[in-house]
Amino acid sequence: MAQYMDVHHGMKGITADQLMAAHKADLAVEKDEGVHFERAWADPESGTVYCLSEAPSPEAVQRVHERAGHRADEVHAVPYSI
Amino acid sequence: MAQYMDVHHGMKGITADQLMAAHKADLAVEKDEGVHFERAWADPESGTVYCLSEAPSPEAVQRVHERAGHRADEVHAVPYSI
Repeated sequence: MAQYMDVHHGMKGITADQLMAAHKADLAVEKDEGVHFERAWADPESGTVYCLSEAPSPEAVQRVHERAGHRADEVHAVPYSI
Repeated sequence: MAQYMDVHHGMKGITADQLMAAHKADLAVEKDEGVHFERAWADPESGTVYCLSEAPSPEAVQRVHERAGHRADEVHAVPYSI
């Protein structure tokens, strides 16, 4: 298992409710892939969403997001964190 | 006070020790600006570093990073988080 930060662009105007709904959609399917989405942050002005997860691979992170209906634009392994 | 996610590019090959040193440099000067850097994540492969902070403004976040010697490439307010 490793930690990942993935990034979604093009989410201008996202609301708190939409962020929560998207996160719940991830949580609903993440177990099938051995992924856990821990945190998420949204900047509605630039339309950027960051998601922090624990997962076996970047592909597993992306599969969960795809099944939840919101493919990530970037998935970064973040082996170092504070 | 609000929450910010800032992003540094061009950090390919960053090590865990370098991430910790950069974070400590932020902590050493952050109080002057009323900022607190809470977390940081590094992807040495793409050279991307993400920093999560509480701050009075995006300019205050940037001033701390500049004084610590590592200006951010992007500073995003993230008013919504999970």
